[in-house]
Amino acid sequence: MVTAILNPLVQEVLDLIGIFAFALSGALLAVRKRFDVVGIVVLAEVTALGGGVFRDLVIGAVPPVAFTDIAYFTTPLIASVVVFFWHPRLAWIRRFVLFFDAIGLGVFCVAGSIKALNFGMHPLAAIALGAATAIGGGAIRDVLAGEVPALLHPESEIYAVPALLGSGLVALLAVTGALTPVTSAFAALLAIVVRLLALRFGWRAPLARGGASL
Amino acid sequence: MVTAILNPLVQEVLDLIGIFAFALSGALLAVRKRFDVVGIVVLAEVTALGGGVFRDLVIGAVPPVAFTDIAYFTTPLIASVVVFFWHPRLAWIRRFVLFFDAIGLGVFCVAGSIKALNFGMHPLAAIALGAATAIGGGAIRDVLAGEVPALLHPESEIYAVPALLGSGLVALLAVTGALTPVTSAFAALLAIVVRLLALRFGWRAPLARGGASL
Amino acid sequence: MVTAILNPLVQEVLDLIGIFAFALSGALLAVRKRFDVVGIVVLAEVTALGGGVFRDLVIGAVPPVAFTDIAYFTTPLIASVVVFFWHPRLAWIRRFVLFFDAIGLGVFCVAGSIKALNFGMHPLAAIALGAATAIGGGAIRDVLAGEVPALLHPESEIYAVPALLGSGLVALLAVTGALTPVTSAFAALLAIVVRLLALRFGWRAPLARGGASL
Repeated sequence: MVTAILNPLVQEVLDLIGIFAFALSGALLAVRKRFDVVGIVVLAEVTALGGGVFRDLVIGAVPPVAFTDIAYFTTPLIASVVVFFWHPRLAWIRRFVLFFDAIGLGVFCVAGSIKALNFGMHPLAAIALGAATAIGGGAIRDVLAGEVPALLHPESEIYAVPALLGSGLVALLAVTGALTPVTSAFAALLAIVVRLLALRFGWRAPLARGGASL
Repeated sequence: MVTAILNPLVQEVLDLIGIFAFALSGALLAVRKRFDVVGIVVLAEVTALGGGVFRDLVIGAVPPVAFTDIAYFTTPLIASVVVFFWHPRLAWIRRFVLFFDAIGLGVFCVAGSIKALNFGMHPLAAIALGAATAIGGGAIRDVLAGEVPALLHPESEIYAVPALLGSGLVALLAVTGALTPVTSAFAALLAIVVRLLALRFGWRAPLARGGASL
Repeated sequence: MVTAILNPLVQEVLDLIGIFAFALSGALLAVRKRFDVVGIVVLAEVTALGGGVFRDLVIGAVPPVAFTDIAYFTTPLIASVVVFFWHPRLAWIRRFVLFFDAIGLGVFCVAGSIKALNFGMHPLAAIALGAATAIGGGAIRDVLAGEVPALLHPESEIYAVPALLGSGLVALLAVTGALTPVTSAFAALLAIVVRLLALRFGWRAPLARGGASL
């Protein structure tokens, strides 16, 4: 029904960049928590693939692509090895993790919503599933590590909002018949830029007023 | 095979009341935790829809109704807006949340077990899935908020027990061929009344003896 | 495609031993946490069946066997009753829980990877799903109880590694055409023995160097 975001090879390369960045963030959190090598691999895999597995189960794309495309599955292993052996030298890399993570966020929210539309989901459901693809893995990572998911509380820059903008634009483009590889790439770029601006300028989501009084 | 709990319109209205009440409880917990607006919406959606999504994935009703009936999906958004803007004036509403939540509990455990039976599940599995529909969303809400699910520990009044009574009665009625709209409405009422009595009189589930000695 | 681990009856008996041991570990943790009887039953069920439900959802074996074979479902109930009424006398049993748990680990990782292969999964995915079957329930148990999953951190003896050895050997045997009831029983035994040796000699997984500096 709707078109792919870009040609399949470019799509796969972008996906793997996103997976690698998400896996790095999982593995680095595991090191910070002093988890062992098993914890590093588990958090890397779960962060990188959790959102997509949830989306695929919901839309009925079973088995999930994470278990059928071996590149999806092995990329987090590579990220784990990198972090395990070289993480003290990764100070310079860690500065780039948030950058790669933003790329993953953009690619995943767009690819996730397009896949949901391809499986016949309603545009509103596709928006939710695109965002869930992008933010789900990080939420599971945080729960496993014993932390409240960063996306829920206001100490973190907005994360779900750029994902919703990206998947929302995809749904709008699909409904209006304007979804092409170029426009969907633009939707991914929108999510990426908003996330990077949020990091740069400390944009946070608002709290309800007077929460403390409850 | 088995009949619906009531006519479809009444069923949908009851479902949406339950979803709205569950979403309120999620959104209010998010405010108490000082989560931002994203956290409010996420907890509202997850609390209201989590149990049903789990049930639908298990019985193979894919995509889950939460992603196909847009009213299911947007109702928690409305609850989030209400809580975000007016929660300090909600002191009087919060007193009713537990009441609406009890209605949601009753409707969900009955509707969940009927749907499971309709998909050919064994009556014992239908009891478990009916209860899971009713209690699953709240459990995920608590885990995401960094708390031990209320239903597990004895500081909360019984919650799973009324759900099991409701879905258990549905299974019994189905096995004996006595499941009708009227009797299934009675099963929902049973769960609701037991829950409200538990709240009124502080009924709690027993602990195993001597747990501290372990 | 591939053969069952043993004849179906032996398989079922071993499965139920594993389920009973896993359920005991969940119920005993619930008692230690001073959860009530609902918490005991929920943790017993989730620990015993969580990994298998995840595997079945991923490979499309819906409804999961945990909801279709009533013995799978009722065994954790029996374990809950045992723990609820007799846990203070279970001091001698608790010494055996880790032993039974190791048997469960071995049976589940092998049975899980064989089932994944039977559903046409890639051998690498089957390794992951076999291990997930064995370790998934315990991870959910720990998250629900408000603890970081034991398998992630180095205070626990290795748990995922023996599971990966067992499911890895199954995949190797399947690829080389050597998977028979006898060889798959040997794979289960390998996982069990490595786990028991890890407990006996305190084998732990390595940490990445310098984790504290992050």
